[in-house]
Amino acid sequence: MSEDTLKKAIKSAEESKDKGDLITNKQDAIAQGLELVEKSAICMLGTNGDDGFPNIKAMLNLKHKGLKKIWFSTNTSSRRVQQIKKDNRACVYYVDEKNFKGLMLVGTIDILQDVESRKMLWMEGAEVYYPLGVEDPDYSVLCFTTKSGNYYHGLKNITFEIE
Amino acid sequence: MSEDTLKKAIKSAEESKDKGDLITNKQDAIAQGLELVEKSAICMLGTNGDDGFPNIKAMLNLKHKGLKKIWFSTNTSSRRVQQIKKDNRACVYYVDEKNFKGLMLVGTIDILQDVESRKMLWMEGAEVYYPLGVEDPDYSVLCFTTKSGNYYHGLKNITFEIE
Repeated sequence: MSEDTLKKAIKSAEESKDKGDLITNKQDAIAQGLELVEKSAICMLGTNGDDGFPNIKAMLNLKHKGLKKIWFSTNTSSRRVQQIKKDNRACVYYVDEKNFKGLMLVGTIDILQDVESRKMLWMEGAEVYYPLGVEDPDYSVLCFTTKSGNYYHGLKNITFEIE
Repeated sequence: MSEDTLKKAIKSAEESKDKGDLITNKQDAIAQGLELVEKSAICMLGTNGDDGFPNIKAMLNLKHKGLKKIWFSTNTSSRRVQQIKKDNRACVYYVDEKNFKGLMLVGTIDILQDVESRKMLWMEGAEVYYPLGVEDPDYSVLCFTTKSGNYYHGLKNITFEIE
């Protein structure tokens, strides 16, 4: 797998070099980053774990408002929620591995348990995760708020703030 | 995208519930985790970024030794290398988004610049990243060493140590 992976990456990097910069300014980076968010089924959530080690977990990409807010559904009893209660600094990462594009958003997370937020992300069948339904105390909504982001495509990457 | 994603996730979770536990012990988790590493083209590297915020970046999955060691190629001048110099605590994450499987490995990273390590990951064409070739001072090898891991499939996850 690895040789093939590197070959493809090199080919894509060479093509991106030939084409010139694929992202030239912050507006491009934000627009292309948003496109990546919109077509992603999952994203990776990074949190500060025990003993100062970073942790990563894949989350379903359920709802977002531009690049400023991203909502996740999770179990209140999960290790992730316990970590966020202690330290709400986080990052969210979206990747298109076929086209060598990636978006990292850095920000903070709020843990929500109000009925409105719970209903917003609920779907028929979600009892498989939260047996007691939409009011299950083990059902929490995470709301991530972006401070800054970094988008890359090929060899180029651009950092931006999100107001 | 989001409704469809959640539907698929619910269906997969229900199937996994019907089948019973897909991973029953640490040996299963390690074996299935290794399988995921072997078929992955990329993985996500988590590091401690500025101001205590976690950072994530996709890396090419080039070489590994079981689940104990993972090697990456990167630019010495990259933000990632500067972060690791200050704090070498890290995690590596592999995901199979179609089958709802994921592996998180937690450990530390060494930055290597010896000729042997450089040659180990080198490939014809890699000059697109490191124009001066295998001895380019801007070419570094990262060696990640695992302390512990967590593998999940469906609704079940298992944590293990790697000696």
